[in-house]
Amino acid sequence: MKTRIQAMLSAHPQPQALFDQEALAECIAACMECAQACGACADACLGEPEHLAHLLRCIRMNLDCADICAATARILSRLTAPDQNLLRTQLQACVAACKACGDECQRHASEMHMQHCALCAESCQQCEAACAALLGRVTESADHSRAAVQPY
Amino acid sequence: MKTRIQAMLSAHPQPQALFDQEALAECIAACMECAQACGACADACLGEPEHLAHLLRCIRMNLDCADICAATARILSRLTAPDQNLLRTQLQACVAACKACGDECQRHASEMHMQHCALCAESCQQCEAACAALLGRVTESADHSRAAVQPY
Amino acid sequence: MKTRIQAMLSAHPQPQALFDQEALAECIAACMECAQACGACADACLGEPEHLAHLLRCIRMNLDCADICAATARILSRLTAPDQNLLRTQLQACVAACKACGDECQRHASEMHMQHCALCAESCQQCEAACAALLGRVTESADHSRAAVQPY
Amino acid sequence: MKTRIQAMLSAHPQPQALFDQEALAECIAACMECAQACGACADACLGEPEHLAHLLRCIRMNLDCADICAATARILSRLTAPDQNLLRTQLQACVAACKACGDECQRHASEMHMQHCALCAESCQQCEAACAALLGRVTESADHSRAAVQPY
Repeated sequence: MKTRIQAMLSAHPQPQALFDQEALAECIAACMECAQACGACADACLGEPEHLAHLLRCIRMNLDCADICAATARILSRLTAPDQNLLRTQLQACVAACKACGDECQRHASEMHMQHCALCAESCQQCEAACAALLGRVTESADHSRAAVQPY
Repeated sequence: MKTRIQAMLSAHPQPQALFDQEALAECIAACMECAQACGACADACLGEPEHLAHLLRCIRMNLDCADICAATARILSRLTAPDQNLLRTQLQACVAACKACGDECQRHASEMHMQHCALCAESCQQCEAACAALLGRVTESADHSRAAVQPY
Repeated sequence: MKTRIQAMLSAHPQPQALFDQEALAECIAACMECAQACGACADACLGEPEHLAHLLRCIRMNLDCADICAATARILSRLTAPDQNLLRTQLQACVAACKACGDECQRHASEMHMQHCALCAESCQQCEAACAALLGRVTESADHSRAAVQPY
Repeated sequence: MKTRIQAMLSAHPQPQALFDQEALAECIAACMECAQACGACADACLGEPEHLAHLLRCIRMNLDCADICAATARILSRLTAPDQNLLRTQLQACVAACKACGDECQRHASEMHMQHCALCAESCQQCEAACAALLGRVTESADHSRAAVQPY
């Protein structure tokens, strides 16, 4: 996956200097993997009749995290005229979603030995780390990127 | 749209105390309207052969904003076991996207009298305001929020 | 919602002759409303602890239908250089999803008096009808459609 | 990617007999790869100022195909209580989108030697083949399928 994503990034006619290309490809792949794992984990939780009552928050976190990771992957795949403030807040939302979902899944992996939650927690942790790595590159200085945009 | 969304919120078997229900329905509707306007504006920009070169950033902002608004609408439509830190960062990302896209569209509406950009700027501004209104309700304290909000 | 969608359609610089504009706006609005209702119904089902075991198929249909309706709304919102074969099969998928989800929800509305399922069934039925109405306009002949529709 | 998807499929508590598991993982991976390639190709086309006027249909097909492939990947990742008629029409829509987009990209790869279009065409062709392979497994008889597949 990462190799293909890198090939697409390299084929883009306009250069992008915002991110290291390998770190960018890594993060796009991690977001996509996490979105898939979260969607599959939500569905696997539905298949646990004895534990379902304890998995409602897990399903909710899975669905939220899948939506945010999918949006992040799409946005990071675009190189044309990026907005740094938008990228920064989106990466922060993705970190928050992966943290919330990863913690929840990790708990069910540890306490109930659920393999789908263990795999999903791993994907969430990798995606959180990959987004955090890119975040370092998008400076907090809104002016740098795009003037006085941040009231929040 | 808002009426239907409110009916769905009212039909939910579990109470939610996080947001004022009308403000929540307003924000979900604004996110959906904005996602539609942004997708349509990106496509309308492709139909402007004489101005296309000046509209590349507009198309990029439209596509990013549509993805973020669509994810926000989905997430806000879920009432089960919310995570306040996730909600807060997602609303911040949505505010940033609507600001970036709304400003860009507003510029083309003013300078080039593009009607699709004028309509899209209006949707972005309404969505930004609706998300900012909800943001006030989600405190920064993630721990406090988890303690207070999770019934599961 | 429909009024705004129609305004965006009217502001498009390129004419589209494929669909009646009001029917198109109606269908885009119905797809968006159905996507929201399905996402909210899936979450509401999670809030029914006593009935959850009987609602697993409903949740699955809700999630599938929400994804398909959201994609349909996005695709129909684009007027540039449509592909009739793609439009036709996407509308068929949307009809199938709305039928499956609407039937499932209708059953829970009738048998268990679930208000969220009743509302969702109504949205599914409206979306199914709106998509079926557009389907009549997209002929089966893909070659003919490409010749007739592509200005690019 | 495929390995991870297979691990998630294997961790699901409920068995699925509808598809060969490897073919299913292959198809989910192909849909995700194609969605990413299409999104990246649309953006790369925006970076071709000299050819942009000839790439409008390509961008449109890219965006449609990305939306449909992403929805297909999500739906195929769910194993709970599938609806065969829904799966069949969704796979058909995905085949149609990949065919339309792949043909368009192949043309630009051949005539204009665009590397991003060549890579995207390859992803479209692989996804089309993977979806066609699964389609063989989903019979036309919706009633028969419902009887055979629903454990709920």
